[in-house]
Amino acid sequence: MKARVTVTLKTGVLDPQGKAIEGALHSLGIEGVASVRQGKVFDIEVEGSDPEAAKVALAAASEKLLANTVVENYRVEIL
Amino acid sequence: MKARVTVTLKTGVLDPQGKAIEGALHSLGIEGVASVRQGKVFDIEVEGSDPEAAKVALAAASEKLLANTVVENYRVEIL
Repeated sequence: MKARVTVTLKTGVLDPQGKAIEGALHSLGIEGVASVRQGKVFDIEVEGSDPEAAKVALAAASEKLLANTVVENYRVEIL
Repeated sequence: MKARVTVTLKTGVLDPQGKAIEGALHSLGIEGVASVRQGKVFDIEVEGSDPEAAKVALAAASEKLLANTVVENYRVEIL
């Protein structure tokens, strides 16, 4: 079973990397970009066929390792 | 208008970072994870209201800056 965990910065947390990308896009002449925020995505292959069990395992994985829940939100999707 | 660009490694490209995460999850006692591949996600606020124009601009941004198209795929979504 395939799953995807998306980790993004919480609103209000500064994102210097996103700001740098925004600046670089302007320098490259790409117009119309108002803001950029960067996050991470984890494409995970899960054993077993119970989507609920997979969600629980991946939420635990996110809390313990994939996301820093002080400054990041995470979202688990079963694909 | 909000958009999301997701950049993931192409199939067959080695992902040592994903492998390290996989190992760490096993060490933490999280069972059932067969493989992990890490990618990047860019949440972009685009000016204007034409989704087609935004898609074109973001595809250009991905080709020029956000993705290394030799080893990475990208996907543009308008949210």
